[in-house]
Amino acid sequence: MIEKRIAEILRSGEPDETVKVQGWVRTKRELKGFAFIEVNDGSSMASLQVVITEDVAGYEEFIKKANTGASVEFEGVLVASQGKGQRIEVKAISIKVYGESDPETYPLQKKRHSFEFLRDIGHLRSRTNSFGAVFRVRNACATAIHEFFQQRGFLWVHTPIITASDCEGAGEMFSVTGFDLNNIPRTKENTIDYSKDFFGKPTYLTVSGQLEAEVMAMAFSNVYTFAPTFRAENSNTSRHLAEFWMVEPEMAFCDLKEDMDLAEAFLQHIFKYVMEKCPEDMEFFRDRIDKTVLETAENIINNQFERITYTEAVKLLEKAIEKGNVKFEYPVSWGTDLQSEHERYLCEKLFNKPTIVTNYPAQIKAFYMRLDDDEKTVSAMDILAPKIGEIIGGSQREERLDVLQRRLLAQGMKEEDLWWYLDLRRFGTVPHAGFGLGFERLVQFMTGMGNIRDVIPFPRTPQSAEF
Amino acid sequence: MIEKRIAEILRSGEPDETVKVQGWVRTKRELKGFAFIEVNDGSSMASLQVVITEDVAGYEEFIKKANTGASVEFEGVLVASQGKGQRIEVKAISIKVYGESDPETYPLQKKRHSFEFLRDIGHLRSRTNSFGAVFRVRNACATAIHEFFQQRGFLWVHTPIITASDCEGAGEMFSVTGFDLNNIPRTKENTIDYSKDFFGKPTYLTVSGQLEAEVMAMAFSNVYTFAPTFRAENSNTSRHLAEFWMVEPEMAFCDLKEDMDLAEAFLQHIFKYVMEKCPEDMEFFRDRIDKTVLETAENIINNQFERITYTEAVKLLEKAIEKGNVKFEYPVSWGTDLQSEHERYLCEKLFNKPTIVTNYPAQIKAFYMRLDDDEKTVSAMDILAPKIGEIIGGSQREERLDVLQRRLLAQGMKEEDLWWYLDLRRFGTVPHAGFGLGFERLVQFMTGMGNIRDVIPFPRTPQSAEF
Repeated sequence: MIEKRIAEILRSGEPDETVKVQGWVRTKRELKGFAFIEVNDGSSMASLQVVITEDVAGYEEFIKKANTGASVEFEGVLVASQGKGQRIEVKAISIKVYGESDPETYPLQKKRHSFEFLRDIGHLRSRTNSFGAVFRVRNACATAIHEFFQQRGFLWVHTPIITASDCEGAGEMFSVTGFDLNNIPRTKENTIDYSKDFFGKPTYLTVSGQLEAEVMAMAFSNVYTFAPTFRAENSNTSRHLAEFWMVEPEMAFCDLKEDMDLAEAFLQHIFKYVMEKCPEDMEFFRDRIDKTVLETAENIINNQFERITYTEAVKLLEKAIEKGNVKFEYPVSWGTDLQSEHERYLCEKLFNKPTIVTNYPAQIKAFYMRLDDDEKTVSAMDILAPKIGEIIGGSQREERLDVLQRRLLAQGMKEEDLWWYLDLRRFGTVPHAGFGLGFERLVQFMTGMGNIRDVIPFPRTPQSAEF
Repeated sequence: MIEKRIAEILRSGEPDETVKVQGWVRTKRELKGFAFIEVNDGSSMASLQVVITEDVAGYEEFIKKANTGASVEFEGVLVASQGKGQRIEVKAISIKVYGESDPETYPLQKKRHSFEFLRDIGHLRSRTNSFGAVFRVRNACATAIHEFFQQRGFLWVHTPIITASDCEGAGEMFSVTGFDLNNIPRTKENTIDYSKDFFGKPTYLTVSGQLEAEVMAMAFSNVYTFAPTFRAENSNTSRHLAEFWMVEPEMAFCDLKEDMDLAEAFLQHIFKYVMEKCPEDMEFFRDRIDKTVLETAENIINNQFERITYTEAVKLLEKAIEKGNVKFEYPVSWGTDLQSEHERYLCEKLFNKPTIVTNYPAQIKAFYMRLDDDEKTVSAMDILAPKIGEIIGGSQREERLDVLQRRLLAQGMKEEDLWWYLDLRRFGTVPHAGFGLGFERLVQFMTGMGNIRDVIPFPRTPQSAEF
């Protein structure tokens, strides 16, 4: 296994140090009597330059085989680099090709490829600069999330992926079954005989771990999920995936204000962490993908988030329309959800910083959100960020049994399906709150990548489940 | 939100410090003119004792309501404790009940409940000492795993949960579908018309992320998965779950020896981490669940693992049988897999330390394991631990295209189904290796819990997908 990665050599290697380098050839340049090889092992955006003189044993065969994509190993000595843009390079003493890469058939050549093309070769695209940067940043985001919660004593809890409750209320669900679809057992009444299925009842892929996270918060106070969730919505857009990862913290003894405080600190922590750990990758995104990514990150890190109620937001939007300051495609009126054009106007034009909109009308929000005293709004909050739009949604949860029962029935749900969830309000109920972050959305915003399919290694979308 | 958790107060709180405590009542003892309440917030095994004298405002109503399971809040001052077993306690100044818990109906009373009973109230069982300890230790295991890999520059990669390949070769799979099972579209030939399903083809829940992790290792060198996996096997045992979490590191430029070195360091890291972070919980398991858990952990932490080949292991077992030192239920002969009684004899009786058995017969192992030069065995390894049995399985992977093609065909698989996996051997192939750890098995071994259903918050097993 690699003892010292290229990232480390580039960062702290000193002249005269002996190193062993293993990785894949990015480029090869032959000159008279020597050659330069750029080798990359995925640990950093930058490749390490290796100089090989023709007196090194096996030079000619090596040069023939060491094409773009080939796997190679070098032993050599570090020397200060003559070239610009690099501090240090390797003078090779011994060289080896592990696996060749035929230039006629290897799909990744030096020219830039479209992201559409690269999606078709999802098994190779991580070897490009763009996807190398995306997945390093993705890993940094994930690590920042665990670090944030673990430092604060939150437990990472694993809520179920397969669920029998179809009432989580967040869209269409995939069915999971042990049945042979060609031969589904039927009852005498010719309905599906679910008693013969693996779980003895209809089961689905979860759309959210929140309800089960609430169970865990009622025992451990502060918990979070970080797990895959699913939507069977036929949305073929650049912002939808059928399978995506979600982060859902849940805190006991917590109200909406504390929920917002935590979410704000959380987002700032992640952006700060990535800026610190992946500066080269972030600069790459600025230079090649979206020139505003660093500003967007700084805007999140350095601002205290604006906080306004939904009712105030509607008034501000109405006033702006009235004054002729803005034209929207969709109308604004109290009681309907804000559209993304409204959200962006609020956080980009009016406040130019992350903006938390709170206390939305009850009828447009989920049954579990806590009803405010006016009985018209609920203690929900959405965080909107400039250039990004909605990035986090959360709420204080309804902890009062009678109110929850009422809200649940009003939305056509049945108490017996959520008996255990109601029990949390029967035994030692407490004010509690939480929020949800779509992990791929976060990575998309962080990197400026235009299509969400390009921030998850193997995207699942309508008509596509490759690799 | 809670500012200072009970674990922290118990650890470092000092007399005269003012604190606010929130949590759930474990026990209440009324004496003449005052009462003791044990309050727990899930941050530690130990509860914090609160002393309330009858002069505190609302005393009588509080005492009436503060039954086991009720949620409460105290403000008070820390004082050195008179009682044994606790360093510090709280003298309450103000008291509050958030949510009551009717002693007539609350299922968790002071007496010990069977784990079977507690499984039926999975939404409340985390409030008991046993499950509190299990899920704190589970979180510590998970954190240790991330820490181990991140410190070594591995990327956490998210491999797909929904997969179209049914050839991962590790048992029965659940089907995932967007179809209404009552109304599955058929073609003219009366076969299922998968072109109309969400993904346009049959899809399943993954049984392993390994093949996709190999894709990522061929770009980033060192990666790991930590994600749910699934088996649709109808195994109603104390060691099987239909949904469980798996950890699968994959390393480029890595052979079997380095794979074993990493796996050994990995296991030792996790056990060390948990012993250090959760000493009280581990002592609880020793006292209440399995008196050997600490020895088992020490045995893993303090020993260099024994390493023997499968062929040597078979010889040792045959010799032991011959000498009459042991009787096994199952026969031992070269070419058949070791049974758990054989594995335990090796690591418990012969070596009394973790034992890695390597180079198993090719015909009993998966197609992707690297064929040894004798063409009879493959570079596989299983780690066996005393009291535990097999805890990790891994291998060097077959990196030679022609050998892999041959092995794949021999096992009745089709090249076109794994074209992308074969491409990894076409373009810059390298020796690489990895291993898999069943996360719930690890937690089961760590805690000594007898049934794997009791180490995951919401177990999925045949005929059961509750909560």
